[in-house]
Amino acid sequence: MNPLTNLQDSLIQQHEQDAQDLTRVLPASKKVYVQGSRPDLQVPMREIELTATPTGLGGEDNPPLLVYDTSGVYTDPNVAINLQQGLPKVRDAWIAERQDTDVLDALSSQFGQARLRDIATADIRFQHLTKPRRAKCGHNVTQMYYAKQGIITPEMEYIAIRENQRQHAGTDLRQHAGQNFGAKNIKEITPEFVRQEVAAGRAIIPANINHPECEPMIIGRNFLVKINANIGNSALGSSIEEEVAKMTWATRWGADTIMDLSTGKHIHETREWIIRNSPVPIGTVPIYQALEKVNGVIEDLTWDIFKDTLIEQAEQGVDYFTIHAGVLLHYVPLTAHRLTGIVSRGGSIMAQWCLAHHQENFLYTHFDDICEIMKAYDVSFSLGDGLRPGSIQDANDAAQFAELRTLGELTHRAWQHDVQVMIEGPGHVPMHMIKENMDLQLEVCGEAPFYTLGPLTTDIAPGYDHITSAIGAAMIGWYGTAMLCYVTPKEHLGLPNKKDVKDGIITYKIAAHAADLAKGHPGAQARDNALSKARFEFRWEDQFNLSLDPDTARSMHDETLPKDAHKSAHFCSMCGPKFCSMKISQNVRDYAENQQIADGLKQMKNSFIEHGQKIYHKQ
Amino acid sequence: MNPLTNLQDSLIQQHEQDAQDLTRVLPASKKVYVQGSRPDLQVPMREIELTATPTGLGGEDNPPLLVYDTSGVYTDPNVAINLQQGLPKVRDAWIAERQDTDVLDALSSQFGQARLRDIATADIRFQHLTKPRRAKCGHNVTQMYYAKQGIITPEMEYIAIRENQRQHAGTDLRQHAGQNFGAKNIKEITPEFVRQEVAAGRAIIPANINHPECEPMIIGRNFLVKINANIGNSALGSSIEEEVAKMTWATRWGADTIMDLSTGKHIHETREWIIRNSPVPIGTVPIYQALEKVNGVIEDLTWDIFKDTLIEQAEQGVDYFTIHAGVLLHYVPLTAHRLTGIVSRGGSIMAQWCLAHHQENFLYTHFDDICEIMKAYDVSFSLGDGLRPGSIQDANDAAQFAELRTLGELTHRAWQHDVQVMIEGPGHVPMHMIKENMDLQLEVCGEAPFYTLGPLTTDIAPGYDHITSAIGAAMIGWYGTAMLCYVTPKEHLGLPNKKDVKDGIITYKIAAHAADLAKGHPGAQARDNALSKARFEFRWEDQFNLSLDPDTARSMHDETLPKDAHKSAHFCSMCGPKFCSMKISQNVRDYAENQQIADGLKQMKNSFIEHGQKIYHKQ
Repeated sequence: MNPLTNLQDSLIQQHEQDAQDLTRVLPASKKVYVQGSRPDLQVPMREIELTATPTGLGGEDNPPLLVYDTSGVYTDPNVAINLQQGLPKVRDAWIAERQDTDVLDALSSQFGQARLRDIATADIRFQHLTKPRRAKCGHNVTQMYYAKQGIITPEMEYIAIRENQRQHAGTDLRQHAGQNFGAKNIKEITPEFVRQEVAAGRAIIPANINHPECEPMIIGRNFLVKINANIGNSALGSSIEEEVAKMTWATRWGADTIMDLSTGKHIHETREWIIRNSPVPIGTVPIYQALEKVNGVIEDLTWDIFKDTLIEQAEQGVDYFTIHAGVLLHYVPLTAHRLTGIVSRGGSIMAQWCLAHHQENFLYTHFDDICEIMKAYDVSFSLGDGLRPGSIQDANDAAQFAELRTLGELTHRAWQHDVQVMIEGPGHVPMHMIKENMDLQLEVCGEAPFYTLGPLTTDIAPGYDHITSAIGAAMIGWYGTAMLCYVTPKEHLGLPNKKDVKDGIITYKIAAHAADLAKGHPGAQARDNALSKARFEFRWEDQFNLSLDPDTARSMHDETLPKDAHKSAHFCSMCGPKFCSMKISQNVRDYAENQQIADGLKQMKNSFIEHGQKIYHKQ
Repeated sequence: MNPLTNLQDSLIQQHEQDAQDLTRVLPASKKVYVQGSRPDLQVPMREIELTATPTGLGGEDNPPLLVYDTSGVYTDPNVAINLQQGLPKVRDAWIAERQDTDVLDALSSQFGQARLRDIATADIRFQHLTKPRRAKCGHNVTQMYYAKQGIITPEMEYIAIRENQRQHAGTDLRQHAGQNFGAKNIKEITPEFVRQEVAAGRAIIPANINHPECEPMIIGRNFLVKINANIGNSALGSSIEEEVAKMTWATRWGADTIMDLSTGKHIHETREWIIRNSPVPIGTVPIYQALEKVNGVIEDLTWDIFKDTLIEQAEQGVDYFTIHAGVLLHYVPLTAHRLTGIVSRGGSIMAQWCLAHHQENFLYTHFDDICEIMKAYDVSFSLGDGLRPGSIQDANDAAQFAELRTLGELTHRAWQHDVQVMIEGPGHVPMHMIKENMDLQLEVCGEAPFYTLGPLTTDIAPGYDHITSAIGAAMIGWYGTAMLCYVTPKEHLGLPNKKDVKDGIITYKIAAHAADLAKGHPGAQARDNALSKARFEFRWEDQFNLSLDPDTARSMHDETLPKDAHKSAHFCSMCGPKFCSMKISQNVRDYAENQQIADGLKQMKNSFIEHGQKIYHKQ
């Protein structure tokens, strides 16, 4: 029996409900594509069909609403999903056309080559591998390089269409003037605007040339706020199938990027399966795998092992690398008297390495070498905040801000290579200390996109840290953070399961959307308005279908009002039929309108009297 | 069989697990009382016992942490709970001593009298009623009146002890300077400070003389941020037992006040059971019951029926009334072109009444009459925001702010009567428009406490509105809101069940605590620090026990690491044993300390060399 069929079978059969969940189209939704300037530039969106307003309330048609869609072709019933083959390669032609890459005969990484020869892992290996691409000698293939050359790539055009929701949404009733904290007040997102933002370093397009399956997206504070979901197995649990399913599950609910933080066995193989089947950019923390290669002995880490890991992962198609190059030797003692020391895994690994060798962090000393690798594949930096605070007590301290200033220095060095950069941020920060993080980051990192983990606004609620952190995430998103790394309810407690992943995603979609509204992002309010209009008009199904999680909204409603008849009822169980304020409100509206008619008639009568009761007074 | 035993039996037996839940002491916790200046002034707190730091990490003892406790004697194993008798009357002697009240022979309300004679409801009636009190003729019995007279009541002293957590917490490692938006930077909360705040109208003590069971608490922006939980049956479901259980459940998890929003049958009886068994203030919206009395026909509402309802409820012991006196006739047309009209039930009732009669709101025209009733029992106003926005689109509009200005006018009128006042606030407001609400409220309402519902920062997540609103609640709490009305996941969808109530409460405890931290409330950070220290030292049980919801934290941990041995493990399933950053961080700390010692020795050696290698160079 083919072991690969096994893998897929176990995904399809053992998790049959899961598999159905992953490809089931959301209710009243269909996948639509908006074509760009060329036939192979097809930007996916989800169109939510709405019913008409009830006759008694006006009877008008409600146009369908288009929403941003991260779920890939999993939710396109016209595309057959085959995990063994991987997703369609939407960017393949664009990359090839640029003629600045070579298709390599073999993997460049020694570890990658050895892994291909390994018999023990043959049965879990992804089979339909294509040969990797690398920039031709002397070429730079980053989107930032193209942008600086004045080139608008298909990726940039794709993104402009994808971000420009207002063009496609018919129900933007009123545009609030958001408070965008010094960023541009965008009216319309054009391909040229995308190019400018990438060229300036204010936005990145994580798009490795070896991840052609990726549907282009952008991370920058003048665009929609994005969210990242972490997945990955640890030594204690979770299999490849589970991780692939988690990835698909996460993008289904709205994850804009996925970080594969696996630390257990088969990191290489797990990653391959994830990338080949992922419609969104994949990020990793390469030091985790490098450490596996030296059996977890931090002192044994070397630049050579790390370098080979970067190349291995770059040729698999990882779109961004978290690199903890800002953890400098002399910053480490700054953490010794913290309440919670160093809580970043990558940060603590590098700190221990520095101390053990009493040498400067090799990620810092080899930073230009790293840039050379990154630009050959267009891997973006996510400069890691290895010294982020792990508690309210440690927020905004000397160690954290010292590292941030070094990340600023490294940002400018990466930009000299035209390598794209975003900056990771905290962590645990009380509300009144959040804005300082954003302001300092913008200042010292030249407005490179900020990518924060929450921040958590209190330490006292393990089990609910998706919520403690959503508060901070929404605020820092409003202040200018471009991407929010989700936190699940299991944070600090254990590995998230499927429910935790979904809870984390929905919570972060809320935070990101709240930030978009507060920033006045064009078109962001269209969905709120469409949903509120449906709510006011008792269009229950539309209300469910327009929500971030239609399944949960519907099931909660049905808990107390299960009968189908109640779906069209003009009340809910919170108030019951007699007290519904929405109903009364409609009466008020009718009354006010009648009153206006009455007032109008009265005015006409008065006017009639004033003008001497002559109807044809002009004559 | 005694029908009352029935009621209790059904509560105890049918919901046996519930009942156990309600009286079970939280893990590692015990009820302690801090005595004030008199033996009958016993302020309850929850003491959380902590284990010692493991020897390898220092081995020091960790002092127990005292936390604010709203759960009443339900969590005191020394008190036998008897729902038929109601709770002990902690304030009885204090009220009697003031000698400014009469004990009435009978209820003053005609409806209340009729209800006592009603045979149909005899089996659900609370039996152990005491006779109601009312202020002696010409007397004013409000806490505000006493405060203005310079009197420090036992209630005020009780509150000072209760709020002054820093006095009792030993682990406040560092005090962040919070940003308190113009409010006082409090160092210590004294009884005199409580008196001053109440006298100035900046805080209220909701404490009806007919609710002596209530453990005094305060609502004001220079105190801990409070949360309210709404309960109440509707025409469609829920029984008296369920409502009493919900109340107890809500206070167990931290509700500072409860609003009984019942609209179904037996409002009067349900309320009696709730008040007699509630250790926290109870608020109501009397117009709901008044409307029941006219069979739901809004046009039939009259001042006389409403007045009798106020007296009925005041003599039962309701601590604050939501009164929608700001919905003026000429404001109603301002809502006609809103996306979601009037969403407040009370607001829409009054709007329809005004339009139907084309008369000014009788709550406004009779406002001084209402004050006369309130001050005879010390019922506080919660001036209702009947025109609050029900969608992002309608936030901060003309109707909302017109009403707010009228609430400001009414605040000053109530203060002329020395009646305590808080102001209700929105609603649905995007983040960038939240602060304007707070600033305008403080300005026009003379700094009376603000009491907001969320606000929800987006409309697109029904099923998760506890989260959309916690973001807004935390922010407005930081800006100065004194009490946050919780929102449950069922908001907009149905009546919350027990799980929803708990989810709402914990979420709002998070928001309130995040606000306390951001305001720099004295001692607020002690719990964060104690929990983070436990986390860093792998004291898993302490981490669970210090959290807002120990049960959930423990069960989530046990999901992936169920073995008891893992409770003392120096890792969790998120990272596994090899990669634990906490562990590495401890190594760094040890290393840094050794380094310091080494550096010290080196320095000594250098010093030795510098000084000519003479050990005794002074000689």
